[in-house]
Amino acid sequence: MKKNYLLTPGPTPLPPQVCEALGRPIIHHRTPQFQALLKEASEGLKYVYQTKQDVFILASSGTGVMEAAAVNLLSPQDTVITVQGGKFGERWTEICSAYGINTEIINVEWGKAVEPKAIKERLKANPKIKAVFTTLCETSTGVASDIKAIGEVVKDTEAVLVVDAISGLGAIDLQTDAWFCDVVICGSQKGLMLPPGLGFISVSSKAWELIENSKCPKYYFDLKEAKKALDKTDTPFTPAITLIIALCEALKMMKQDGLANIFLRHRKMAEATRKAVKALGLELFAPTAASDVVTAVCVPKDLDGEKLVKVMRDTYAVTIAGGQSELKGKVFRIAHMGFIEEFDIIAGISCLEKVLSQMGYDFVLGAGVKAAEEEFLKNT
Amino acid sequence: MKKNYLLTPGPTPLPPQVCEALGRPIIHHRTPQFQALLKEASEGLKYVYQTKQDVFILASSGTGVMEAAAVNLLSPQDTVITVQGGKFGERWTEICSAYGINTEIINVEWGKAVEPKAIKERLKANPKIKAVFTTLCETSTGVASDIKAIGEVVKDTEAVLVVDAISGLGAIDLQTDAWFCDVVICGSQKGLMLPPGLGFISVSSKAWELIENSKCPKYYFDLKEAKKALDKTDTPFTPAITLIIALCEALKMMKQDGLANIFLRHRKMAEATRKAVKALGLELFAPTAASDVVTAVCVPKDLDGEKLVKVMRDTYAVTIAGGQSELKGKVFRIAHMGFIEEFDIIAGISCLEKVLSQMGYDFVLGAGVKAAEEEFLKNT
Repeated sequence: MKKNYLLTPGPTPLPPQVCEALGRPIIHHRTPQFQALLKEASEGLKYVYQTKQDVFILASSGTGVMEAAAVNLLSPQDTVITVQGGKFGERWTEICSAYGINTEIINVEWGKAVEPKAIKERLKANPKIKAVFTTLCETSTGVASDIKAIGEVVKDTEAVLVVDAISGLGAIDLQTDAWFCDVVICGSQKGLMLPPGLGFISVSSKAWELIENSKCPKYYFDLKEAKKALDKTDTPFTPAITLIIALCEALKMMKQDGLANIFLRHRKMAEATRKAVKALGLELFAPTAASDVVTAVCVPKDLDGEKLVKVMRDTYAVTIAGGQSELKGKVFRIAHMGFIEEFDIIAGISCLEKVLSQMGYDFVLGAGVKAAEEEFLKNT
Repeated sequence: MKKNYLLTPGPTPLPPQVCEALGRPIIHHRTPQFQALLKEASEGLKYVYQTKQDVFILASSGTGVMEAAAVNLLSPQDTVITVQGGKFGERWTEICSAYGINTEIINVEWGKAVEPKAIKERLKANPKIKAVFTTLCETSTGVASDIKAIGEVVKDTEAVLVVDAISGLGAIDLQTDAWFCDVVICGSQKGLMLPPGLGFISVSSKAWELIENSKCPKYYFDLKEAKKALDKTDTPFTPAITLIIALCEALKMMKQDGLANIFLRHRKMAEATRKAVKALGLELFAPTAASDVVTAVCVPKDLDGEKLVKVMRDTYAVTIAGGQSELKGKVFRIAHMGFIEEFDIIAGISCLEKVLSQMGYDFVLGAGVKAAEEEFLKNT
């Protein structure tokens, strides 16, 4: 008998209410019955996004909505800033390049957060920049950006601020309207506690002006068509019906809990995780800019980081994530996001201790769990 | 108490095995556990596609994979043929136009099938044509095209044959390899008995040659990246995990039944539906080219077709589809596809009789059901 614990930064575990909704008999999408649910989902997303703007629901994974942001806002030969401090920042550059959009890349050392003033200077140096592409939480490094400060920098320029909040929305604070975020994109499989397959995108009035003049080719991801449809509580193409119905359930849970409580829960879990790994003598990969979403931990010298993740998963059914791209084998990542709570973290740390011990790593057994318990007790 | 009957051409009803799979706790996608399922799904799709080629699974609805076909095969200024005999044929033209691809449109009267020789003549007249975009079953009219004959026409030219088999694959015969179909696209919510949210696309070696030279911009739908990933039993971006796991269940059922039995079941249901509506004095919209997937029926003069559909759905919970675009209010459509069988059709016809009777339409009550029963009895 194996009981699975999922501590990965997407997908995150599914609440039973979501599983139940996913398993219901399906209904047709061009019906008043589905329209009522689509309306409920769209309104619920505004709560999580902290916005009064429309939030569109597309049938795609997160990368699809990233592409939607770029191709709807821009034209070939436009120039934009992309902030690259990890694998997902790099993806902005790749998408823009695929469409002939020029990118001024702000490279940030992996594990550090971008300095808002670096963006300010670059915008000042080139007033033709049309958009700034950022990442709320860089899943590959666990780093959170100061989107509020970046919003202050971008709002008085001609450029729009685009935030990849795929990891982070519904887990840590992101005030779409108050922080002047023009386009915020998200996916279903992280803070929103759903399977992957839905993408979300909000659009400010400043962004709509750019969209009106965009010349990048698009069809499936055309937001003008999405807007026309949403105005009639409809979708331009067949929506991912079951996922939208499950989204209504997840949003109900989130409203009931309240954003403030949700953010607090994530902060407590993140702090407990950080304290725990430090108590085991491990180092945080991003000590100065760690997010409350996922914690990247350096693999100690002489330890096989990939094997650690593999044994935890395949022998003990506790799934954490390894490193991606240049961090492969160098870090492991423990997610504390979505439908994960205190005792999942305790279980994850305990399994980490077990495997570290079996791999001959020198530490005091129980020290990690104890540190997490202390933190959880303190914050109650 | 209302019990729902879904007789719409996508989504189609979900088998209990699929519902069960959708409601399972989720697993992470970068694991050997998920890889085994992805492999099973990809192999199973080859069976349904009747192909030895790779079939890629994308997280999008059908229109997304249609776009994937166009942007991967072609470059701006290329010229292609699009066959337009309904709403979905028109979609091929719209997608190509969005990417600056020239379309030579073969207009076919709605309700008729394209003549393969019309394609032959057009290909002969312009040897620069790179692709022929067709539709296996035009959901808006219920018409099936003779893809086998079209394949014979296209195979000896430079052009590739692209088939939108979103409605039809896994319901009626489509021999991807034997009929020289270079690119066949499909969606999850029709013959494959799943919720919407997955798109499928097969690619022949002739099509790969075009893909190598394609200059249309793309990122999320880039098939070269999908191929690189699939060769390692992986996906370039986060896949729609639960839908792929449910796909494995649907494919198991289809293999167990066998394609020949599946096609026979669809033929019987279609024939019974056609006989039933004729026995009610109604006319088929496409008498000469009716598919075994969905039957479009003309709304009799003096009858409100939209009301008919609405009352069946909202009063009696039997959902059929109305007409789309220029056929709005002029036809209604009864699907007999996917997880629908004999007694669902009987229920659907019975409800149709009930509402027709209540709306004052003149016919012999029971005549439709009797005609369907006769047909089912005959073909047993």
